[in-house]
Amino acid sequence: MEWVDTGSAMQAPDATFADTREARQAIRAGRWRRHTSGLAPAYVQGNLVILPVDLASDFMRFCQSNPKPCPLLAVGQAGDPALPTLGRDIDIRTDVPAYRVYRDGVLVGEVDDLKALWRDDFVAFVLGCSFSFEHGLIEAGIPLRHVDEGKNVAMYRTNIQTVPAGPFHGPMVVSMRPMKAADAIRAVQITARVPQVHGAPVHIGDPALIGIADITQPDFGDAVRIAPDELPVFWACGVTPQAVVMAAKPALCITHSPGYMLITDMLNRDLPFA
Amino acid sequence: MEWVDTGSAMQAPDATFADTREARQAIRAGRWRRHTSGLAPAYVQGNLVILPVDLASDFMRFCQSNPKPCPLLAVGQAGDPALPTLGRDIDIRTDVPAYRVYRDGVLVGEVDDLKALWRDDFVAFVLGCSFSFEHGLIEAGIPLRHVDEGKNVAMYRTNIQTVPAGPFHGPMVVSMRPMKAADAIRAVQITARVPQVHGAPVHIGDPALIGIADITQPDFGDAVRIAPDELPVFWACGVTPQAVVMAAKPALCITHSPGYMLITDMLNRDLPFA
Repeated sequence: MEWVDTGSAMQAPDATFADTREARQAIRAGRWRRHTSGLAPAYVQGNLVILPVDLASDFMRFCQSNPKPCPLLAVGQAGDPALPTLGRDIDIRTDVPAYRVYRDGVLVGEVDDLKALWRDDFVAFVLGCSFSFEHGLIEAGIPLRHVDEGKNVAMYRTNIQTVPAGPFHGPMVVSMRPMKAADAIRAVQITARVPQVHGAPVHIGDPALIGIADITQPDFGDAVRIAPDELPVFWACGVTPQAVVMAAKPALCITHSPGYMLITDMLNRDLPFA
Repeated sequence: MEWVDTGSAMQAPDATFADTREARQAIRAGRWRRHTSGLAPAYVQGNLVILPVDLASDFMRFCQSNPKPCPLLAVGQAGDPALPTLGRDIDIRTDVPAYRVYRDGVLVGEVDDLKALWRDDFVAFVLGCSFSFEHGLIEAGIPLRHVDEGKNVAMYRTNIQTVPAGPFHGPMVVSMRPMKAADAIRAVQITARVPQVHGAPVHIGDPALIGIADITQPDFGDAVRIAPDELPVFWACGVTPQAVVMAAKPALCITHSPGYMLITDMLNRDLPFA
């Protein structure tokens, strides 16, 4: 499962760009080939999934039916690398620092851009990611254990089934952040305001109730300590659509590389009002 | 502690009034001398505290500093029994079905109206109550154990200290409703929208963390069952200001009788937008 995006920890990059276009230009010009966590931190970043058009409508229905794990920020037109609602100048073939290419659900390579691979039947999907809501939690003074410990967030397969659509089906993957109850209550309120980036938690408390047998053994990411006065709080995770797409074994699929996201022109602070 | 308002259970009364003025007129005319739970259910009901003006500014500061247990809906002018922001025709001397009179913090009697007792230095405080948010939870399809079991809600003294003001100080009292995690998450969102009626929970999970030694032994109201797949969810409770006022032993204080509330013209559905 090495394809999984475990880039949730908000590591500070060596440089930040105040302006999102400047950040994208650096990526486009090949001057930034690293993860984007903390890069242009005021702006919404997105997960990328590119599928051939024959799978696009099923995948769109899947996202529409499962908005918590698969919050769609934008869908491109078939063959069109532009995503004007996310940024006027975006070219999805060049504006992500690294891409992964899968054939029949198997990772076959990583590329810097899609100039050679792009096809007229490709449809780009951009999905909201937890960077934005973690930004909101940190701004609200809620400590995030995995950030403080410099780890990736802990993620788990659950027994919560997604709503299937065409070939896409499978269990929801969740991320877990331990919090004191007062912070958990505030975190529900904060994240409920931003359904575009996973929204409110899907579970609080006993992990066994959602099919997690051992909270100390995450399926992806790193285990973090849960203090006796803390509750585990679980959010739907963007790994869900990745896992679901790979399990469907599409002939061809392209995603961003873990942690190497698309930086949009949307401000995190505008999400509650979008 | 028999003065405590334990009227939270939404028992259906024998009759309901579609119009709030009709309900108040029946009360004013002495035709309704029972609890008001479920009466004109679309409308906000309020807890009443009447204090002499020399204590009024301290009590107002206390409420302002402790909005979760003491959400002020309206404060009358000294000597004026009208509360026009809650209902144009309200006369607080006659519009509550039963009143309790306390001298030096001790209950000395119950009366049908305040015509004989009203004084020019009386200030009326109306505080939001949990009827409104329980209405919102039930409308959202969230089961309430104490309602289903025909009991009063379970209430507990905590080790959460209120912010003191003048003679008013003491621990927060909370009400507890057991819920499945998914319902608890929705309940946070629903009640956070209505700070006028206690707002979001103050705690979820381990009762010991807020100083409750035995969850099966509520300090007020009735114990309810907590299922293994449920979390106890705790809200600030309107018993807090009652307890704080009684502990301050004011020479004279008048409240509504438990469960016999003031019915206002405010619609519950308007609270999130007020």
